[in-house]
Amino acid sequence: MNLITSLDNINVKRWCKLKSKKYRDKEGAFLIEGEHLVLEAIKQNVAIEVILDSETIFPVDIPKYYVTKDILKKITSLENPPAMLAVAKKIPEKPYGQKLLLIDSLQDPGNLGTIIRTSVAFNIDTIVLGENTVDLYNEKVLRATQGLIFHINIIKRDLYTFIDELKKNNYKVIGTNVTHGQKIEELDLPNKYAFIMGNEGNGVNKDILNKCSQYVYIPMNEACESLNVAIATGIILYELAKKR
Amino acid sequence: MNLITSLDNINVKRWCKLKSKKYRDKEGAFLIEGEHLVLEAIKQNVAIEVILDSETIFPVDIPKYYVTKDILKKITSLENPPAMLAVAKKIPEKPYGQKLLLIDSLQDPGNLGTIIRTSVAFNIDTIVLGENTVDLYNEKVLRATQGLIFHINIIKRDLYTFIDELKKNNYKVIGTNVTHGQKIEELDLPNKYAFIMGNEGNGVNKDILNKCSQYVYIPMNEACESLNVAIATGIILYELAKKR
Repeated sequence: MNLITSLDNINVKRWCKLKSKKYRDKEGAFLIEGEHLVLEAIKQNVAIEVILDSETIFPVDIPKYYVTKDILKKITSLENPPAMLAVAKKIPEKPYGQKLLLIDSLQDPGNLGTIIRTSVAFNIDTIVLGENTVDLYNEKVLRATQGLIFHINIIKRDLYTFIDELKKNNYKVIGTNVTHGQKIEELDLPNKYAFIMGNEGNGVNKDILNKCSQYVYIPMNEACESLNVAIATGIILYELAKKR
Repeated sequence: MNLITSLDNINVKRWCKLKSKKYRDKEGAFLIEGEHLVLEAIKQNVAIEVILDSETIFPVDIPKYYVTKDILKKITSLENPPAMLAVAKKIPEKPYGQKLLLIDSLQDPGNLGTIIRTSVAFNIDTIVLGENTVDLYNEKVLRATQGLIFHINIIKRDLYTFIDELKKNNYKVIGTNVTHGQKIEELDLPNKYAFIMGNEGNGVNKDILNKCSQYVYIPMNEACESLNVAIATGIILYELAKKR
């Protein structure tokens, strides 16, 4: 076993750089933390190398690096360093299907990760991330997906022009709007649709929201101005899944 | 204006102590951060004193303390110190109603705060926190409630014995269970009910779950083992609200 012990080792530096979006984009790779996510990445054939605590036995057929606890601590974003990390290559985009979720300017990584997990639960084909949305490969996003990032197609688009493309292809583009929409439970679900959700504080950008073909809302007590965006998305995707 | 400038000032020390649950319990008070929450606390008559950036003008009839930016930075849990904080007295428990949400061993403060916000949206009367649940007055819980902590009755109980009390009083106690339950949408909603949700990783404690009168589940794609607990709660409370 070849144990890396120096915090200045060239690989350690490389792994630490993967904490920044810029370097992830340049390398087309990202860092995965913890056994559950690492095993998922290996199963999905996207893991390039694993980084292991010197005491971890792990029979797997990709390059392995054994490191000290201090190095794990330096690489990880977690309070308690996991015994196992991996570098994975970014997941390639696939053609989008008929049931889309569009995400505009979402900022909280926990929210994005949870929305990805929920989208798998309710059979969304493809998630489309707008340009101002938190990076998909942010470590908190990955953690909140609970490994389900590997189970759904996720693509990036300029939503403004992408909505035009969708409409040309007969997709209904659906947004939320409290003042002039119909109850989500009363929506007649089209075959091809794209549901759009937005930023935590400000919702969907107005220019984009104006392009929607129709609007829905979730009825609720007026003491509550709005739901958390991941909760609202969960309820909407649940209702859409029921209609199919 | 009397400006506090010393980080060792006795009030500064007192405010910092309110970051710990132990001291909050002893004092029967908690710390509130940011304009939105502070204004809600004042409206609800629970604010005892406000702590202000020396530049903030704030016409309000309770004791005001002006402090330096360094002091705000020391007191706050936020990355960017808000211009306004307050000390509030803990909200007194009220008698519980007919539509209850029981929370067992929930650990993540963001999840609890979001669940409180969602409970207001869908007209739950009372939230009942079990003994192993994250502290209600944790600053991350408060932030995630978006001020709605003041709009719902929240009480603490030993859930094991409380469920017996509820059953004696003809409440249906409902839990989630994937293997033997009915679809949430098919549930016949009783007049008096208590829905119980549990821990992020382990769900509801088995001894408690076994006491339920009935079980429901949310149908979903099997690639997804489970939903985030706040999302699952959101969908369930949404469905219950529709039935009334």
